[in-house]
Amino acid sequence: MLLNRAKLLASPAANSVFTTVLTRGPVVRPEIARITGLSSAAVTKAVKPMIEAGYLEELPQGPRIVEGAGRPAHPLAVRADREFFVGIKATADELIGVVTDLRAQVRAAHRIPVTDRSAAQVVRDIAALVAELTPVHAERTHHIGVSVSGDVDRRGGVVRYSPFLGWRDVPLAELVAAATGLTVTVENDVKALTVAEQWFGEGVGADSFALATVGVGIGCALVVNGRLVAGGYGVAGEIGHIPVAAGNGPECHCGARGCVESIASEEAIVARARHAAGDPDLDMAGAIDRAHGGDAAVRAVFDEAGEAIGLGLAAMVNLVGPERVVVSGEGLAAYDLFEEQIRAAFTTQAFGAAARCPLIVRPLPWEEWARGAAAVSIQSLFAA
Amino acid sequence: MLLNRAKLLASPAANSVFTTVLTRGPVVRPEIARITGLSSAAVTKAVKPMIEAGYLEELPQGPRIVEGAGRPAHPLAVRADREFFVGIKATADELIGVVTDLRAQVRAAHRIPVTDRSAAQVVRDIAALVAELTPVHAERTHHIGVSVSGDVDRRGGVVRYSPFLGWRDVPLAELVAAATGLTVTVENDVKALTVAEQWFGEGVGADSFALATVGVGIGCALVVNGRLVAGGYGVAGEIGHIPVAAGNGPECHCGARGCVESIASEEAIVARARHAAGDPDLDMAGAIDRAHGGDAAVRAVFDEAGEAIGLGLAAMVNLVGPERVVVSGEGLAAYDLFEEQIRAAFTTQAFGAAARCPLIVRPLPWEEWARGAAAVSIQSLFAA
Ligand SMILES: [Zn+2]
Ligand SMILES: [Zn+2]
Repeated sequence: MLLNRAKLLASPAANSVFTTVLTRGPVVRPEIARITGLSSAAVTKAVKPMIEAGYLEELPQGPRIVEGAGRPAHPLAVRADREFFVGIKATADELIGVVTDLRAQVRAAHRIPVTDRSAAQVVRDIAALVAELTPVHAERTHHIGVSVSGDVDRRGGVVRYSPFLGWRDVPLAELVAAATGLTVTVENDVKALTVAEQWFGEGVGADSFALATVGVGIGCALVVNGRLVAGGYGVAGEIGHIPVAAGNGPECHCGARGCVESIASEEAIVARARHAAGDPDLDMAGAIDRAHGGDAAVRAVFDEAGEAIGLGLAAMVNLVGPERVVVSGEGLAAYDLFEEQIRAAFTTQAFGAAARCPLIVRPLPWEEWARGAAAVSIQSLFAA
Repeated sequence: MLLNRAKLLASPAANSVFTTVLTRGPVVRPEIARITGLSSAAVTKAVKPMIEAGYLEELPQGPRIVEGAGRPAHPLAVRADREFFVGIKATADELIGVVTDLRAQVRAAHRIPVTDRSAAQVVRDIAALVAELTPVHAERTHHIGVSVSGDVDRRGGVVRYSPFLGWRDVPLAELVAAATGLTVTVENDVKALTVAEQWFGEGVGADSFALATVGVGIGCALVVNGRLVAGGYGVAGEIGHIPVAAGNGPECHCGARGCVESIASEEAIVARARHAAGDPDLDMAGAIDRAHGGDAAVRAVFDEAGEAIGLGLAAMVNLVGPERVVVSGEGLAAYDLFEEQIRAAFTTQAFGAAARCPLIVRPLPWEEWARGAAAVSIQSLFAA
């Protein structure tokens, strides 16, 4: 089966045909040829073994009509239940897991708490969560994606640094493969979420877009020229470490000064709100309550955070020029406290026509992040 | 001829075969197939009419050996003198022009002063420069590229805003076409320089790189996922408008505060050096002299400029993750005054492994910029 699939998707032509049906399907062969730039003959040749192996199917009737076509065109679609994928998002407190089909539709979901953040225990918990999730489709489940925040080397399968889990150089792919028997892809959580958006969400058909997340940290993943930006050294999208107040800003955990995260991460907001309120025990929920309740000093902390985020988004848009920016993340609980300043700072700092780039605010529950991890494991079908 | 060429390069396969020979050649057919992902048959089919039309030629002996090949492989090369291209870089003071062959090798160069910056006069000067440059190869010269700094809409052929020329919404492609009879491509000067690097320089084979220029302004062009970043709204690479000192930085000509250019553009440096030296007539050369001569206050102005540039470069590398960054531009005259601070700020601000990205400092004379404009016009052969 694995060999068979590797053969099916070995050529760039096969790869691009399958991706087209997966993200745009149902779609007729002439349209596949137009989108991929391949000849009709090449499309027909690539499609045949995929149908035989059960990954694609011909639908009886086409929702799209091809004008002037001689014989009726049968649209092709991906057979969603041909294979299933596990996606797990690991936070510092919880493992959120889903099982999706080949079209990244969620078929099952489950969460378990993280009580011990050591890599060994988290891997055992992942295996337990997989066992919980997969009994139904076990025989058609071969791939798992795991996403964590921080610096992740997807190719090497290593979590190089995840501050919130306290991990450094954890060979997570190898450990999870040993514990589950599945083929493992690990990826940065924001990048994984972006893959899901690009293949199955807002990003379908967009040449460039950005997904920024506001929460414990400020993250961002970029799609440019149609593909996720990986970074020549594995680092990209670090909007949290743009120095928006370099001269006199607060120290950042990265070692620099005045980064967006030094002002707008949850930790920074809580620290600054504690100082502003004179209450060393204040937590995030308490800070949000105080700001909503009219505490001007705490309110100003959120204003400054919103301004830093807006400046960071503008710097990113000035550099990369995405067609649109989706803003999401856990921090959306406080988004009403940020939004005005985010938009104002963005508008001031965006250069010329870049100010036309829309900021789309969208809540994404944890299960969407886990779905992103599953989407990454679907992508691994196409790995060279 | 034009029709013929349009037909030759009409298919994506032909396009990618020709680009491969142009940027990697001489190269044998099996290697073209490997690089492009096309079948041998497709490569052979694409190559045939290009040889017949004189764009490609078979070399008698291959510099690269293919192991186990049945018959000797004839490498293919682009016939450099099949066609010639004019490239012009327009600055506020000078038009710098070159004629290149199809491989972007400079065959002739000439400069003329700009005395009147009105678009009408600059277009007349461009026509005069073209007449000066092209008598020898006139019958094989059909394309011209013109590059200017600022916001340029390449597709529409319009210079939307060029502060140093004082232009807004100038339909430069149309005007130059009328004055010269050539097919015109206009492009932002830094982007054009980057195309030359990508196709014929440091960038060949790199999936991502950045070219930053330090001088009158601070510019940057990015290649990401193998292609120049154009920006969804035509804006990208605006490293000069990253807010590195947002809170309390100086006003920038863009309307924001604390942008890199508000601290490190030539205008900003001169203004700050005048203030530091108490000399309202100081110019850039004078400021450089004073800094070299040990004037600590003026020296500090260059330090701050270097720091702002280094922070801007780090922000860009943190976001985009290029494999390498080429730093160039007119400002290199003062580079010894900047370099230490640029590198120190970059190292402090680069996030994790991003600090491994090399900064390559390289002087580029104006004729290299004009060559970039010619490279853009070579690219226009492949326009859809
Ligand atoms: Zn930082
Ligand atoms: Zn600015």
